[in-house]
Amino acid sequence: MYDIIIIGAGPAGTAAGIYAARQGLNFLIITKDIGGQIGKKAVDIENYPGFNKISGSDLVKIFEEQLKKNQVKIILGEVLKISAKGQPASGGENPKIFEISTATGKKFEALSVIIATGADPRMLEVPGEKEFIGKGVSYCALCDGPIFKNKTVAVIGGGNSGFETALFLSNYIKKIYILEAGPEIKADKENQDLILKTGKVEIIKNAKVLKISAKGQPASGGEGPKLVGSLTYLDTKSNKENILETDGIFVEVGYSPATAFAKSLVDFSDRDEIMVQPETFQTKTTGLFAVGDCNMGKYKQIVTAAGEGAKASLAVYEYLKRNSNGKN
Amino acid sequence: MYDIIIIGAGPAGTAAGIYAARQGLNFLIITKDIGGQIGKKAVDIENYPGFNKISGSDLVKIFEEQLKKNQVKIILGEVLKISAKGQPASGGENPKIFEISTATGKKFEALSVIIATGADPRMLEVPGEKEFIGKGVSYCALCDGPIFKNKTVAVIGGGNSGFETALFLSNYIKKIYILEAGPEIKADKENQDLILKTGKVEIIKNAKVLKISAKGQPASGGEGPKLVGSLTYLDTKSNKENILETDGIFVEVGYSPATAFAKSLVDFSDRDEIMVQPETFQTKTTGLFAVGDCNMGKYKQIVTAAGEGAKASLAVYEYLKRNSNGKN
Repeated sequence: MYDIIIIGAGPAGTAAGIYAARQGLNFLIITKDIGGQIGKKAVDIENYPGFNKISGSDLVKIFEEQLKKNQVKIILGEVLKISAKGQPASGGENPKIFEISTATGKKFEALSVIIATGADPRMLEVPGEKEFIGKGVSYCALCDGPIFKNKTVAVIGGGNSGFETALFLSNYIKKIYILEAGPEIKADKENQDLILKTGKVEIIKNAKVLKISAKGQPASGGEGPKLVGSLTYLDTKSNKENILETDGIFVEVGYSPATAFAKSLVDFSDRDEIMVQPETFQTKTTGLFAVGDCNMGKYKQIVTAAGEGAKASLAVYEYLKRNSNGKN
Repeated sequence: MYDIIIIGAGPAGTAAGIYAARQGLNFLIITKDIGGQIGKKAVDIENYPGFNKISGSDLVKIFEEQLKKNQVKIILGEVLKISAKGQPASGGENPKIFEISTATGKKFEALSVIIATGADPRMLEVPGEKEFIGKGVSYCALCDGPIFKNKTVAVIGGGNSGFETALFLSNYIKKIYILEAGPEIKADKENQDLILKTGKVEIIKNAKVLKISAKGQPASGGEGPKLVGSLTYLDTKSNKENILETDGIFVEVGYSPATAFAKSLVDFSDRDEIMVQPETFQTKTTGLFAVGDCNMGKYKQIVTAAGEGAKASLAVYEYLKRNSNGKN
C-alpha cells in the first residue's frame, strides 16, 4: 500500500515526485515515459525559468536524474483504470483506497493518486488523415521533420505550437504553409516575427482542412494510397474549396488529455480535461488529484505544470496527515 | 504608458517577466533586488525541478541572465503606492490606468500591474529583539551565520525554514537549539532526519520566547546592551520560565508580505496576504494581479511562485487583448 501513486512523469508528475520524496512519503510513479511532451518538443525551451535555452531532451535528462537522486521508484507502463473503494470509517473526508490497473495486468494500491498524464495531440478527423499517418501525416515535427528536407509541407494550426513547428521545419524545408481555421493567428507576436524572418512560410487563414489525398491521382485502386500529395481545404470566407500540393502535413491543432481511465471518479470539461479545485487540484473524489495539461486549467506551460505538481504533492501530504489517525 | 508593470523580481516576478517579454508586451519590472528570498537562502535549493542542487545565488544569476536575454527593462527601487484611475468607457471590464510611485519620487503608468513582492521575515515581537538586531539577533543565517563560528545559537521556529537554517549553521556552529512554540515539529521528515544526524541540535518544543537579554548581567545602565547573551522562554506545558544561554538568535517564524502599498485596491487575508482569484491571480481590482508569496496561496515554493507568475502574465495578456479595442 503506497501513500501516493503518481501517474505520469512530465513536468507535473516530476515536480509532484520530487516533493513527495522530500516529504518522506512512500510512493510510486507509473508512467509511459519520462518527460512527457517535453521529450517531443521540436524547438528549444526558452520559457522555463532557470534555463536561458535548453533542448527538450536535455531537460528530460535532468528531470530523470533529479528523480533518481530523490530515489523515486518508477514503473514504466500504461494505466488502464483507477477504481476506489471505501475504507472503514475514519474521519470526515471519507478516505478511500485506490486501485490502479496497468495494461500488463499489474495492480497497485494507494491512499491517494495524482494524475499527471498530460495530453496527446488532437487529430483533424478528416478523410485520409489516419491512413497517411507515417506516410506524410505527422504529429511530431521533431520525429518526422527531417524526412521532408527540401520539400513542401503544411502545418495545420496557427497557434504557438503550429508556429514553433514551422519554425523548426524552416531549418531545412523549402516551403511551409501554415493553415489556420479561424480568421486570426493565435501565436505569440515573437513567434510571428520569427516566422516572418524565415521568408519560407505562407500563412493561410480561414482554411478548414477537408481531406488529405495521395500523390498524383486521387487515392485509387491498385495498391492504394502511398504518400501524401495534397490537401483540400475550404476557404470559409469565400466558401471555395482549394487544393494545396504538399509532401507532408504536420497537425498542430491542440492536445486532448488521455484521462478516460479515471472516468468513474472525476468530472470532465467539454475538452475531456479533469475538473479540479483551485490550489489543491483535488478532483471531486477525495484523495484523487490531477495536475498539468490533463486538468481543466487554462494555462498549459512547463512551469505552470511543475508548479501544480508541487502544490498537489503538498496538498496530498496534508490530506494523508489529516486522515492518518495519528500515524504520521 | 506601459502594458504591464511587474513589481518584484523573485521567481514569481521573473517568470511573469519572461512570459511578458515573449508576448511582445511593453513592460517594466520595478524591484528592490533580483531573486528575492532566493538570494538569501542559507541552504542549496534541491526542490526546484530542473536542478538537482543549486545555490540560491547561482539561481538568481540565471534568472538575471534570462531577464537580460529577454531584454526586460528593470528599475531598482521600492514601490510606495499604487493608485488606479478610471479610463474613458471601453468595454465591460472597466479597465483602469495604474499609477505607481516609488520611494525616490518617480511615477510610472501602466494598463495592468502584477504584484510579486514576496514576503519579509516575521518578527518575534518580544523585548530585546529590536535592539539586538545585528548584535546577535538575525533573520538571515546566510548573511550572519559565520559570525557565530564555534559558538552557541538558538533558532526560533520548528518549521522547514527553522530546520534548514539549523542545518546550514551546523556546518560551523558548536551547539544549536531549535525552539518551537507549539507541541509539534512542522518540518519535513527529511529535514528532521538530517538535523538528527548532525548531533549538534537540541529541539525544545512548547517554548514561547519571552525576551532577549544581553551577555552577563541583564541589560542595565552604562553603555547599554552590547551583545545577545541569553533568551528567556516559557515552557507552555509546565508553565515555567527558563533561561537559555546563547550567543546568537536566528528568527525563522515565517514571513509577512510587504503589500501595504496596494491597500486601497486589494483585500487582505488575516496574514496580510493579497486575496486573488484562482488561475488568473487577479485581485478584486480588474487589471491588478498578485503572485507568489505575497498572495493568499497556501503553498509558497519557488516553483509554485514561478508557475503563478507565468499564469498571471498570460492572464494579463488576455486582459489587455480584450480591452485594447482592436489595437492588438
